[in-house]
Amino acid sequence: MELPDGRINPEYYVLEYPTWINVTAITKDGDMILVRQFRHALGQTNFEIVAGVVEKGEEPLEAAKRELLEEAGYGGGEWKELAVVSANPSTTTNLTHCFLATGVEKVSQQHLDATEDIEVYLFKKEEVKEMVHKGEFVQSLMLVPLLKYFSGI
Amino acid sequence: MELPDGRINPEYYVLEYPTWINVTAITKDGDMILVRQFRHALGQTNFEIVAGVVEKGEEPLEAAKRELLEEAGYGGGEWKELAVVSANPSTTTNLTHCFLATGVEKVSQQHLDATEDIEVYLFKKEEVKEMVHKGEFVQSLMLVPLLKYFSGI
Repeated sequence: MELPDGRINPEYYVLEYPTWINVTAITKDGDMILVRQFRHALGQTNFEIVAGVVEKGEEPLEAAKRELLEEAGYGGGEWKELAVVSANPSTTTNLTHCFLATGVEKVSQQHLDATEDIEVYLFKKEEVKEMVHKGEFVQSLMLVPLLKYFSGI
Repeated sequence: MELPDGRINPEYYVLEYPTWINVTAITKDGDMILVRQFRHALGQTNFEIVAGVVEKGEEPLEAAKRELLEEAGYGGGEWKELAVVSANPSTTTNLTHCFLATGVEKVSQQHLDATEDIEVYLFKKEEVKEMVHKGEFVQSLMLVPLLKYFSGI
């Protein structure tokens, strides 16, 4: 692996990340909450589900509820864990906890960090399933819970 | 992100990886080919599908066929692309091409690199589907094609 400064790292280089979360969120009306955000490394803006980092002292579920509120302004509902996955178990040390939140409601405005620019969208579930089928989501950590949700596997 | 040497990198740090591939492989007898390999960053040995790196000058499909032959000794069959995904579009520049190979046959012994130690297993498809359901696969880049294969989404 070559770093931006040109150093080559041996294969046992390991990336220490904090735990991540993401949220497959369904509103009381049965719509899915998607967000759009520019992703630097791929240079693309794609539809995504709400996602973020577990802060020090937080449980993954707490972080998931905080991120849904901050990024989209939604809260309440029923929560459960759909999957726990790794982006790459040979190079990254962290896991991503994927939550399903059903019956959430708009309770506030977005509260974004200074560096965030996130647009919020509501989609019919069937539309999102079709987007998954057509390959419109690229981020594997988000595709796993979406595929699990739609397939029941 | 903190590096092993203690340096803190800003958020726009980007990891340049080559293109990756993985293979959901089904034998002529209808079994799925899984491998087990120690993954350093998580410190775990999990069941996985065959996966690897696209070498310079190779097409993703060529690399997938080469890896299935090298890691498991299987070849032939019908090949198609199931998905193209990113492990993390905010930090890694590469994509993973996920192939489905059906009707493959044992054609040789494994040809492993010096640093590889990979065990090969055949499983019934229903067993693998149950393993996916129970969370026994942790690597999101492999769960996406497995979930797509089993769900048809």
